[in-house]
Amino acid sequence: MTNLILAPIRINQLALANRMIVPAMVTRLSGEDGLVNQAIIDRYTRFSRGEVGLIVVEATAVHQSKSGPLLRLGSDEFIAGHRDLVQRIHDNGPSKAALQIIHFLKIARSGWRQTVDMLSKDEVKAIIQAYGDAAARAREAGYDAVELHMAHAYTLSSFLSAHNKRRDEYGGRSLETRLRVPSEVMLQVRARVGKDYPIGVRFDAEECIKDGYGLNDAKYIALRLAQLGADYVSLSAGGKFEDAKLEPGEAPYPYTGYSGDRTMPPASFQDAPNVYLAAGIKAFFAAQGQTHTKIVTTGKIRTPSDGDAILQAGQADMIGFARALLADPDMPKKARLNREHTIVRCVYGNVCKQLDENFKQVRCGSLWPREFLHAPEAPNDDIAPVWPADGASISAKLNEDGRVRVTWKAAIDPQGVYGYEIFCAVNGGEFQHLSSLLTTNYVDETALAGNAYQYRVRAYDFAGNRSLDSAIAEIVVPAPFAADADVLKVR
Amino acid sequence: MTNLILAPIRINQLALANRMIVPAMVTRLSGEDGLVNQAIIDRYTRFSRGEVGLIVVEATAVHQSKSGPLLRLGSDEFIAGHRDLVQRIHDNGPSKAALQIIHFLKIARSGWRQTVDMLSKDEVKAIIQAYGDAAARAREAGYDAVELHMAHAYTLSSFLSAHNKRRDEYGGRSLETRLRVPSEVMLQVRARVGKDYPIGVRFDAEECIKDGYGLNDAKYIALRLAQLGADYVSLSAGGKFEDAKLEPGEAPYPYTGYSGDRTMPPASFQDAPNVYLAAGIKAFFAAQGQTHTKIVTTGKIRTPSDGDAILQAGQADMIGFARALLADPDMPKKARLNREHTIVRCVYGNVCKQLDENFKQVRCGSLWPREFLHAPEAPNDDIAPVWPADGASISAKLNEDGRVRVTWKAAIDPQGVYGYEIFCAVNGGEFQHLSSLLTTNYVDETALAGNAYQYRVRAYDFAGNRSLDSAIAEIVVPAPFAADADVLKVR
Repeated sequence: MTNLILAPIRINQLALANRMIVPAMVTRLSGEDGLVNQAIIDRYTRFSRGEVGLIVVEATAVHQSKSGPLLRLGSDEFIAGHRDLVQRIHDNGPSKAALQIIHFLKIARSGWRQTVDMLSKDEVKAIIQAYGDAAARAREAGYDAVELHMAHAYTLSSFLSAHNKRRDEYGGRSLETRLRVPSEVMLQVRARVGKDYPIGVRFDAEECIKDGYGLNDAKYIALRLAQLGADYVSLSAGGKFEDAKLEPGEAPYPYTGYSGDRTMPPASFQDAPNVYLAAGIKAFFAAQGQTHTKIVTTGKIRTPSDGDAILQAGQADMIGFARALLADPDMPKKARLNREHTIVRCVYGNVCKQLDENFKQVRCGSLWPREFLHAPEAPNDDIAPVWPADGASISAKLNEDGRVRVTWKAAIDPQGVYGYEIFCAVNGGEFQHLSSLLTTNYVDETALAGNAYQYRVRAYDFAGNRSLDSAIAEIVVPAPFAADADVLKVR
Repeated sequence: MTNLILAPIRINQLALANRMIVPAMVTRLSGEDGLVNQAIIDRYTRFSRGEVGLIVVEATAVHQSKSGPLLRLGSDEFIAGHRDLVQRIHDNGPSKAALQIIHFLKIARSGWRQTVDMLSKDEVKAIIQAYGDAAARAREAGYDAVELHMAHAYTLSSFLSAHNKRRDEYGGRSLETRLRVPSEVMLQVRARVGKDYPIGVRFDAEECIKDGYGLNDAKYIALRLAQLGADYVSLSAGGKFEDAKLEPGEAPYPYTGYSGDRTMPPASFQDAPNVYLAAGIKAFFAAQGQTHTKIVTTGKIRTPSDGDAILQAGQADMIGFARALLADPDMPKKARLNREHTIVRCVYGNVCKQLDENFKQVRCGSLWPREFLHAPEAPNDDIAPVWPADGASISAKLNEDGRVRVTWKAAIDPQGVYGYEIFCAVNGGEFQHLSSLLTTNYVDETALAGNAYQYRVRAYDFAGNRSLDSAIAEIVVPAPFAADADVLKVR
């Protein structure tokens, strides 16, 4: 079977080498000046060396005024830096580069926040204009595409929202009026960049808040964007202010509630919890005869294989990997070289998300060696890590609270060990990847009394070389119900 | 293809006539005395005449003390009323009857609520005992099965919850300790009712709140319940206190937040949004060799056909229809008679949910005639409604806010018109059921500029007879962008 995720795809006139995308991720690597700097260049060229099909550079403000420590493109002085960034992305590999452009409203430490119903019509018109101006600058800077941010807690998403409280023609009385400003932005941007330039739109296919909109509305939002000529829609979920955590004296942050978990699903979520949104819109597009607009799905999709299965099932056209590509930017290249087993796999512990929430530079705090601001480069190295002469000495023991603690010895590698992967088989089933980590111990929070567990580990180095599998540590967790132990049946 | 949903199924020793279930629904039909009364009998015998496979009678308190206006079974004096109810359910049709038993903690108008970490060990032991006692009484009353409520905001769910803050062996340190009390309840109930008596468990397969558990934990919760001999698990989602609306001076109510929308998905949600939970657990059971325990899925599953598709896909073993069977208790019978097109279809407007939230008797406020406390009975009547001599005079007009308003004339029927169904086709596609209603007008909130809509209606009477389809009203909603109208392409 063809590996669809490695197949080229065309977005408008733009040819992509494969169907793997880095969705826009906040990095907090830029300063208050809003300029492209070396850290930004290092972050994005890394993805290009990893052969990502399309890199969507992080949300860049269309505002003319200062807008905090993030990239800006609100005036012409910012173009040069972006031109340099795009050039370097192109120089480092096959990746194409899109720029995500964003408008957001004011927010205060008091908890007050500006909402779309507070905007005058002139302010609304200025926002539409600012999107057009920024898109034109993105094209001038050499970006291969522009992506309009209409997702999460930001201005255009708030117009789309079922919580839009305006009563005029830009308001929440109907889906038509909620769509008005986003539609005018699409028209304005298209008029400014021309019909051959790829425009993507990222929006929430489900708000994931009380009385928010869901897939039923999202189908029609996507249809409108398609009818206005969007070349792709990239589907997110949640990330709203309405359920954000409120801390006295701190401005609310829109990814701190349940809806934020739906944007970046943590380990407690199943894999790919948001794919049904793409699948629903794709089926709707098929019924409506819409074939031009491509659909990007995102959210805890672990590997190229998992993404390929989604494409094969016809649920989406392209796969966005955010945290997975942050953890290992070489993922597409490893997939192309048929070395998917050497991918350093995101554990979805959301340390990156917490860094963002705490206004710190975003890095992979679970898997990258402590001192790295970016993912380690793969050196030329054919030598795999090995276990000590007496083996990994892996053991599994029961904690008093019923959790299983697995420990093993450090492996040895001339260029250094990067980390360990731990695999587990329950009740004699298949071994499955449980986690990846830098340490030599792991606590399995899900191990339950009455079941048999087998664990094994392997070490990997910076080049992706793997050690042999360790021996297997076995444990049957005893039933906590002494008198009724026979009720708990181990298969 | 065999219609799986109409096929018999066995739960432990209990044979069900089909795979359609009424999940426990709050009715507020019982009084402060907690006794079975005529309204309760009328509500549940109606389902039996409709040929529902298994009726799960609403959550009944295991408490010995007063517990508000809901059914109780905390002492032997309540048995007689339940015995009468079961007898009448059996006398009225083929349905089997299960009783759902519940424990919940205290809550105050101040917003204060008791949580599981406030319970002494003796209180915990008393709760376990109370479940055993109530289950034994349910069996004595003649119920065909008992269902343990471990879902939503109630005591056993709060032990399972990732928010369980106890630090002892009943606490939140690990999934094992969170499972301890629910496991002891299972063991206690099984010891009291014997091994041949069917025990079901309803629990949340996803909490749908920030830092709640999800499907990953739910798989292991289901496995534990299966290992302890649960005959079915009935999967719900959400319904928690953690995101409930807070109103000064009112006790918080656990279905008022986003998680409550996931319990009873409103019209804005796609169909069957929670089926992936059942599908995930079913696949996990297959991998673990668990075949005894049946899986019930619920949540905005519209029709027997839709339920059958879920069963055919192997995503669940039985289908729970709550609001759909409230709207039309004759749904299973109509499916058996191949008259599914005569079902009065729930519109998921959640008027029933609002009645519950306002402490009012729960009825279908959208579809039942105003004066009915229960679903109308189908009389002997072969005469279908007809349109007036000059037709239904259906018309579709654009409101100034962009919504389409459809109006038509009342139909005529000698025994009275019950309601109308409206169907819509977008851009020349298939006609789809849009809504059912008692009035002769409808506002389509989703109609969008740049698209062509066709509407038609039909009337139905109390026997389910349908009028002919009305003529078709057509409207092309003009683009709101005068200068750019050509951008909005109608296919």
